[in-house]
Amino acid sequence: MERKKIVYVTRRERFNAAHKLWNPEWDEEKNKDVFGKCANPNWHGHNYELFVTVKGVPSEDTGYCMDLKDLSDVLNKKVVDVFDHKNVNLDVECMKGKLTSTENMVVAIWDLIENSIRALGCELHKVELKETENNGASYYGE
Amino acid sequence: MERKKIVYVTRRERFNAAHKLWNPEWDEEKNKDVFGKCANPNWHGHNYELFVTVKGVPSEDTGYCMDLKDLSDVLNKKVVDVFDHKNVNLDVECMKGKLTSTENMVVAIWDLIENSIRALGCELHKVELKETENNGASYYGE
Amino acid sequence: MERKKIVYVTRRERFNAAHKLWNPEWDEEKNKDVFGKCANPNWHGHNYELFVTVKGVPSEDTGYCMDLKDLSDVLNKKVVDVFDHKNVNLDVECMKGKLTSTENMVVAIWDLIENSIRALGCELHKVELKETENNGASYYGE
Amino acid sequence: MERKKIVYVTRRERFNAAHKLWNPEWDEEKNKDVFGKCANPNWHGHNYELFVTVKGVPSEDTGYCMDLKDLSDVLNKKVVDVFDHKNVNLDVECMKGKLTSTENMVVAIWDLIENSIRALGCELHKVELKETENNGASYYGE
Amino acid sequence: MERKKIVYVTRRERFNAAHKLWNPEWDEEKNKDVFGKCANPNWHGHNYELFVTVKGVPSEDTGYCMDLKDLSDVLNKKVVDVFDHKNVNLDVECMKGKLTSTENMVVAIWDLIENSIRALGCELHKVELKETENNGASYYGE
Amino acid sequence: MERKKIVYVTRRERFNAAHKLWNPEWDEEKNKDVFGKCANPNWHGHNYELFVTVKGVPSEDTGYCMDLKDLSDVLNKKVVDVFDHKNVNLDVECMKGKLTSTENMVVAIWDLIENSIRALGCELHKVELKETENNGASYYGE
Repeated sequence: MERKKIVYVTRRERFNAAHKLWNPEWDEEKNKDVFGKCANPNWHGHNYELFVTVKGVPSEDTGYCMDLKDLSDVLNKKVVDVFDHKNVNLDVECMKGKLTSTENMVVAIWDLIENSIRALGCELHKVELKETENNGASYYGE
Repeated sequence: MERKKIVYVTRRERFNAAHKLWNPEWDEEKNKDVFGKCANPNWHGHNYELFVTVKGVPSEDTGYCMDLKDLSDVLNKKVVDVFDHKNVNLDVECMKGKLTSTENMVVAIWDLIENSIRALGCELHKVELKETENNGASYYGE
Repeated sequence: MERKKIVYVTRRERFNAAHKLWNPEWDEEKNKDVFGKCANPNWHGHNYELFVTVKGVPSEDTGYCMDLKDLSDVLNKKVVDVFDHKNVNLDVECMKGKLTSTENMVVAIWDLIENSIRALGCELHKVELKETENNGASYYGE
Repeated sequence: MERKKIVYVTRRERFNAAHKLWNPEWDEEKNKDVFGKCANPNWHGHNYELFVTVKGVPSEDTGYCMDLKDLSDVLNKKVVDVFDHKNVNLDVECMKGKLTSTENMVVAIWDLIENSIRALGCELHKVELKETENNGASYYGE
Repeated sequence: MERKKIVYVTRRERFNAAHKLWNPEWDEEKNKDVFGKCANPNWHGHNYELFVTVKGVPSEDTGYCMDLKDLSDVLNKKVVDVFDHKNVNLDVECMKGKLTSTENMVVAIWDLIENSIRALGCELHKVELKETENNGASYYGE
Repeated sequence: MERKKIVYVTRRERFNAAHKLWNPEWDEEKNKDVFGKCANPNWHGHNYELFVTVKGVPSEDTGYCMDLKDLSDVLNKKVVDVFDHKNVNLDVECMKGKLTSTENMVVAIWDLIENSIRALGCELHKVELKETENNGASYYGE
């Protein structure tokens, strides 16, 4: 009998959001000193690119680890609908009380989708978020 | 004597900004009806990509229509410093009282740089601004 | 009174389709001689990228030449629904009896959308279709 | 003596192919129910992007883990010539009797090239295949 | 009778070359003053991306303005073979005695290919060359 | 108490450089036989894209593993200033006596930055360098 083969599948989604880096325990001067232009009080924003990778064994019936339409539906319902055309500091429940760095966002997004991925029969492997073409963060649940 | 040849030179710059589409003469319901999620009161944002094209005759001494470092300096001083990590509705002087559509932004950017380009010996040909990988606007000064 | 300014707006859409280049008046040998691997009888396919550019004067109420959601709706209804996950030779009405070159596709797409664009108050300026990252065609209605 | 350092080298190749997702044990209704538009009987297609990563120790004579021209030759002979401008369901020997999902394709491509990579002195590390800019699959031989 | 429709077709090719910006009538100090780091005496280099656009009427027999394989053959023979893995200042005949700016390169490339394009039944419309993702030049034969 | 979460952060930088592949212990014929056009005596060049990934635990005060401005400063000072608009064979101290393959460059770049990354409180995870859109190498310090 052939051994089960593990394949990784990646889906890209995008959302556009406003945010600022701001530690409420600091005054404006210290925030601007630490975060520079990212602390602009009136916000700035990004086109975020989200790449989510799941791992699983392709089904003999479908050839799929997971139907990418199902993965896309999870990502849209749990992440894109929550972040897209929103203010990450003000409008996004799971980021309340957190600094809205890309690092904190990938961890929060992992927590938003981990159970839904498992319910679809796959294991969440990686959440990657690109803030710009030069900057990004990844989280593997470690 | 060889005829003068006209070459077009394009420089890309980038800036990250927050904005919302909002007509102050309308109430929130009508703004949301017309602009949809782009009217989110707490803003959203984009990684804007700006492409500026100038035309000129290459210099015999340098091979340049215009030193791209000079063009980049103009774009950074006149546009990027003005829009980057800012709120286009609140922080940007030339957009005051205007709807912050990509269409209105390319016209405003043209006006910000036209004279500086001419002072450097070239003619401004095109200002293109991409709001996302799917949406963009261009202005030729027509 | 300020003169009306003309702005060009571009929207990208994508579709994935199968096709082959095949002149039914020729036998297989001549088709393979002229079209090479593009004449594979069992078809091949592409991720087509469509860029449609319209021109208009931005509205004072919205800042829009045309609401890009309306433009996207037209493109999805008239083009993407017709071509996506289809066989361009067999499944697409407007390409019946035509060679499915990128050249012929941009002309056909122009005809599919021209009236809808005009009905939305803009003028269709350009239809561009990229078959691969290396090959593409554009039509300006000339 | 300096320890041997392990470097990973990646080569991209591209091919354009037609396919459909279709389980021959199901009727058309069930295929369309499960696979949606991917089950269009007349096929659809993609520009596939293949990224193959090998690992090895750079040679002191050449600085290469493996001459990328040799890697490209293997990929062209074993993969691109087999899949490019073909129908993955009908024309590709190694996919016969398999569902032509990206998941199954990366496993099949691994098997096509593993021995040739080893014969060139490197170890195959990863086969990644992007079906669209949003969807892809990777296999590490696990 | 239907009017002839004019379609524009674009082909991308790439080449990797070394060069420096250096006016031999100036000493090293003035060259460094004018051209900055681009005047590094030991050269630097780029991955150049060339986009050539031709215009023509699609053939009724093939759907082509021009077979893109023929266009690619012309570009490879006349341009890529001449510039690829070469030093633009030292190895490229048509650039001898010229400053190797992108501006001068697009004009030189136009002259290299114009007749071959015409011999294939199309009109050369545009030669665009991107030196980096931020900088490029275009020539329309004006 | 919540466990520390490990996040990976990636920064992209770019540099343009000339080089050739040339083993000084071989004559020109053997160099051209082994390295092909990459052995052009007058050099060729590339737009190199560098991706550096570090791992760490996001700070509770900033949300950062490491301030990306600090990472960018390290990469610019230690790598970009050293390689950009230079000849990798002639001008770059850390490549002296080495073949300038992408493989050898990623190992050399790792050594240039490892200590500075550690001094900023993160661990260097990966150095990736793309020579062209088709070819690249990665090093994980193994």
